[in-house]
Amino acid sequence: MRMYDIIEKKRDGNPLTEKEVNFFIQDYTKSLIPDYQVSALLMAIYLNGMNEEETFNMTKSMIDSGDIFYMSGINGRVIDKHSTGGVGDTVTLILGPMIAACGIPFAKMSGKGLGHTGGTIDKLQAIKGINLELNYEEFINNINNINISIVSQTGNIAPADKKIYGLRDVTATVDSIPLIASSIMSKKLAIKSDGIVFDVKLGSGAFMKNLDDAIQLSNELVRIGKAYGRDTTALITNMDEPLGYAVGNNLEVIEAIETLKGNGPEDLYELCMALGIEILLLSGKFKEREQARIQLEEVIENKKAYNKLIEMVELQGGDSLYIKDTQLLDKGKYSMEIKSKEEGYISSIDAEDIGKASLILGAGREDMSSKIDLAAGILLNKKVNDKISINEKIFTLYTNDKPSLLKAKEKVEQSFIISKKANNNKKMIYKRIV
Amino acid sequence: MRMYDIIEKKRDGNPLTEKEVNFFIQDYTKSLIPDYQVSALLMAIYLNGMNEEETFNMTKSMIDSGDIFYMSGINGRVIDKHSTGGVGDTVTLILGPMIAACGIPFAKMSGKGLGHTGGTIDKLQAIKGINLELNYEEFINNINNINISIVSQTGNIAPADKKIYGLRDVTATVDSIPLIASSIMSKKLAIKSDGIVFDVKLGSGAFMKNLDDAIQLSNELVRIGKAYGRDTTALITNMDEPLGYAVGNNLEVIEAIETLKGNGPEDLYELCMALGIEILLLSGKFKEREQARIQLEEVIENKKAYNKLIEMVELQGGDSLYIKDTQLLDKGKYSMEIKSKEEGYISSIDAEDIGKASLILGAGREDMSSKIDLAAGILLNKKVNDKISINEKIFTLYTNDKPSLLKAKEKVEQSFIISKKANNNKKMIYKRIV
Repeated sequence: MRMYDIIEKKRDGNPLTEKEVNFFIQDYTKSLIPDYQVSALLMAIYLNGMNEEETFNMTKSMIDSGDIFYMSGINGRVIDKHSTGGVGDTVTLILGPMIAACGIPFAKMSGKGLGHTGGTIDKLQAIKGINLELNYEEFINNINNINISIVSQTGNIAPADKKIYGLRDVTATVDSIPLIASSIMSKKLAIKSDGIVFDVKLGSGAFMKNLDDAIQLSNELVRIGKAYGRDTTALITNMDEPLGYAVGNNLEVIEAIETLKGNGPEDLYELCMALGIEILLLSGKFKEREQARIQLEEVIENKKAYNKLIEMVELQGGDSLYIKDTQLLDKGKYSMEIKSKEEGYISSIDAEDIGKASLILGAGREDMSSKIDLAAGILLNKKVNDKISINEKIFTLYTNDKPSLLKAKEKVEQSFIISKKANNNKKMIYKRIV
Repeated sequence: MRMYDIIEKKRDGNPLTEKEVNFFIQDYTKSLIPDYQVSALLMAIYLNGMNEEETFNMTKSMIDSGDIFYMSGINGRVIDKHSTGGVGDTVTLILGPMIAACGIPFAKMSGKGLGHTGGTIDKLQAIKGINLELNYEEFINNINNINISIVSQTGNIAPADKKIYGLRDVTATVDSIPLIASSIMSKKLAIKSDGIVFDVKLGSGAFMKNLDDAIQLSNELVRIGKAYGRDTTALITNMDEPLGYAVGNNLEVIEAIETLKGNGPEDLYELCMALGIEILLLSGKFKEREQARIQLEEVIENKKAYNKLIEMVELQGGDSLYIKDTQLLDKGKYSMEIKSKEEGYISSIDAEDIGKASLILGAGREDMSSKIDLAAGILLNKKVNDKISINEKIFTLYTNDKPSLLKAKEKVEQSFIISKKANNNKKMIYKRIV
């Protein structure tokens, strides 16, 4: 088998066999095939696509390239949650404790974030003393004891995906549905949960910019998940404006805690409810959506979910004062308020621009070597459809890097549009795919 | 300017600007852009194409990456000839002396062949003592004295093309018309002739497998040539069966000499006439096709063309006995005859299979480090539409590498088809494009 023939076959629009897919994935992972041949193949895949079988085989081969994590030591069915990535997405920190408080195990291995803000693990770093590197046994034990643990992903999960993603990132071949689907699924399926709920983001701040693409990606994720014997559901959700009001690590932790206390932003709360319902249904312990929703609302109202977060932090050695008194979380040395020059209604807030501004302020990583400023970020004062007057505050920027303020200001100022009428046509959940 | 953005632009089907084309060509030549980004771009170009302006700009940038050879020292207009490559193509060795014998300068800088057989320079190597590395002044002087010189191409012509071609060769991106056109033209236009006649081969033994592609390539070549101020003509010619009867270096030299003596194969003779007419017309010394043809026939009949070859060989220090007595040219230690198992008419001889067999026998180069066996090759006894009886000889194989005979035999045996009726529908020249 020759890599040249595989490139030629895909170039001419023909499907690759399982053996051909395996050949290029495994040999590339072992550096037996040069980057320049794989990048030519990736561009051919980008432009000519892959069918369902090819995408499945690529996923399987990437899983097989690395370690598998078994969840069989956990009592009860484990349902994983995965977001395709958006701006201000602090769902895991809210949803995890909610699910655990409903008596369902929530076992999360989370990677470092590479984007506008850090990932869940970065956000939890702000809590003094917390150990996010439990060993596998501790992780399983904690879940069996209190139904929840969130740890930093260790081991060698899908190294083939890591290598291929690195190449896609510099050759403009990221944005391909079969490549995105196989990349996500290779990492998700290497962790042997019983089910997966996907939050597929749609909008300016997401990979998927139109509904058709989001549906296609969701279908792929659900199909591959099911082919692997996992109960899988996907929700397509709004990422046109940032989720909630907070963008940035500590700002999002505060917002998550407020949401657990019942004071969260409406859109973030609704999204957690929608995803929570799917998880409870897949867990097998709930049969009715309405019943699941009532249960989720209850654990917010009676603070059981909030207390579950405190319990988890303490069991992992963290200082829960940081949860109880969010004033302890650093907001940075510098801040700047952005005010409106017009009056009217906010008709849009471009999530991508806000994400970029947050990156400028230091909240995210440009690459794996970047250091995150946990304090940096943006607090929105208004959401789409809100009324605004002249000189009223729209955003506050936070950072420890003073010069970044002016650059970020420019980005956020171009992110929103004010119009005379409210739009009123805002949707959080576009579609449910099972 | 970032290579990533250029890849993305072409990936999305948008034309690149002159600046963008220059950026990737020049920076890649200087190794400032990695192979893996260029191969992704090449695949995007392969699949999404390039418009006329992009192809022109790519040609220009590749020319600018290296040396330019001026022909202004030569008395009279210099018309170059270029074949896109076929099997058994010994035209230059015949056409050059013919043109010179008609009083028109023929200045040929020829590269080493990378294919089924060697190039013109490899073929001339068989002549003892010949100097194919004249310096530039000697080259020009010889042409002014006797109207002809053939030398090995020196200097650094279009290094960008060389590097890009190397990458295309291993990433299945050779077979793209804008890439082929810019590659050919960057090398041709770096030699400042007054006009160019292209022999665009069409058929199983050529790059171009169908007439539409051949027309498209010819149009591109003529268009770019004219945009550079060169009088340019292209003929699309038959390469379904090998040209003439000889495939291999010494075998082709012998066939060329026989053609100059008036004993050449009909198809090879006709092709030389057709290309010769175009050269004489572009030279400006002939206005009428008929007049040009009469002149070309005359220099064959009166042996002026044959004598011109002897004159050139001698002026370049070669032993012309090798021309006068072709028995001196080695035919190798081993030979094998292939006989027909059926009777009927030869309905096709696959030129590509014959080319591959010739490569197996040692006549060509797999890569630039391969050593050529000048003696190796195949002599056809029959051409398409010829009658054949059972046990009648079709081919003879020649080589110095005995084990290659059986492998080559298999290839040539699969190359021809015998049917009950003659086809009679054979054409040498498909189309003329000006």
